[in-house]
Amino acid sequence: MNRGRNIKVILAYDGTNYHGFQIQKGKRLPTIQGVLQRELSHLAKETITVTTAGRTDSGVHARGQVFNFFTGNWQIPVDRVIYALNSVLPPDIRALSAEEVDLGFHARYSALAKTYCYYISRDQIVSPFTRLYSYQYNYPLDLDDMRQAVLHITGEHDFKSFMASGSLVKSTIRTIYQIDLIEKDKMLIFTFRGNGFLYHMVRIITGTLLQVGTGKIHYSEIETILKKCDRKSAGATVPALGLFLERVEY
Amino acid sequence: MNRGRNIKVILAYDGTNYHGFQIQKGKRLPTIQGVLQRELSHLAKETITVTTAGRTDSGVHARGQVFNFFTGNWQIPVDRVIYALNSVLPPDIRALSAEEVDLGFHARYSALAKTYCYYISRDQIVSPFTRLYSYQYNYPLDLDDMRQAVLHITGEHDFKSFMASGSLVKSTIRTIYQIDLIEKDKMLIFTFRGNGFLYHMVRIITGTLLQVGTGKIHYSEIETILKKCDRKSAGATVPALGLFLERVEY
Repeated sequence: MNRGRNIKVILAYDGTNYHGFQIQKGKRLPTIQGVLQRELSHLAKETITVTTAGRTDSGVHARGQVFNFFTGNWQIPVDRVIYALNSVLPPDIRALSAEEVDLGFHARYSALAKTYCYYISRDQIVSPFTRLYSYQYNYPLDLDDMRQAVLHITGEHDFKSFMASGSLVKSTIRTIYQIDLIEKDKMLIFTFRGNGFLYHMVRIITGTLLQVGTGKIHYSEIETILKKCDRKSAGATVPALGLFLERVEY
Repeated sequence: MNRGRNIKVILAYDGTNYHGFQIQKGKRLPTIQGVLQRELSHLAKETITVTTAGRTDSGVHARGQVFNFFTGNWQIPVDRVIYALNSVLPPDIRALSAEEVDLGFHARYSALAKTYCYYISRDQIVSPFTRLYSYQYNYPLDLDDMRQAVLHITGEHDFKSFMASGSLVKSTIRTIYQIDLIEKDKMLIFTFRGNGFLYHMVRIITGTLLQVGTGKIHYSEIETILKKCDRKSAGATVPALGLFLERVEY
């Protein structure tokens, strides 16, 4: 079968008004994938299916999501793709760049690393301008203890304890290359770079780190939590709205 | 008449979903004043009228709006006012601080200086996260020429040329203490600090400065524009969404 060209697109979106990236079978709720496929199919005058690097959950945002699609029909020069797309996409979804890639390129399977950020507002009053893009958490936090915990989480581990149920994966082993924890104004920003992340993994690690910060979990317990391979041993899942898919590397 | 206590409140809001600050006679569109008076009257169990420092237009945002109101009935300690208010206000409006002030304090007439910021996105693609808080303007700009124009606008002038019609004011003379023009990432930020601003004045000055930047108006023409006292001599009005009321000084 001639699948035509394979186009890779980098995408930003405000996830507030979407029920996640992936089309939900039988549901008509707006999803990023649903909007992309509808508009691309309309532009290309053929049925387009998009493959994404990260199937972000409902309410999760992206500054550097990646998807690819095949088109045999659409004759547009690749440097015009983002203009065509942005002229029809809603303003809370923007195509940032597009390039033609090898037919073997797969947005998810070809990815070598992904970077997510999680934003925590430490302000007593949630600003109207960050309310949809950060999680408010006002309890006192011991950042040194949290940074100690980070040392135990970084590296290759079986992260089953940090995976929500309801996902089917062959292996729960992942490598986190780096976790940064920075304070900027009244915002605490976690950055996670790894070779892949399990379902809710970033949000469960963040929730666990917050519980280390409040003293509910001691950083030395992280090793035990990992070893247990049991979701119940880790901390709570923080809300979706503070999470951003920042970047995918190939 | 015993008017009770006079309470001054500092307020932030995302103006996107409001038809400006001021209640529009005969219209039922949501306004910041309408929401504040409804919630305050409910909390105080008496009819509350709020007086504001700056009657921001539809779509204009605020990080440091100020209003005051009188209450004879509401017995709440003043340090609890913002918690009571924030528990009933929608999340796009937040009370930041409250204090009891002299009965003679008037949020508008007592103001000595106001600071507004205007945000211009220079990005080719408008980010989903700044689309409601900046005006996209991609033409090349000569910032040096714009800074020259700023020198002619700063100071005490009759700003009638920079006032939209439809406002009744005794005097069109105002003093602008300072205009700053900074570039940060792909954002151009104008900051205006003055003793007061006429209707649409910040937006018309910004529009005129952009036309200086593109060469359509030469900076040496600013003096002539001011002298003409004619709205038609100045540049276009930029959209509301890039404008923020930052601070009011007393």
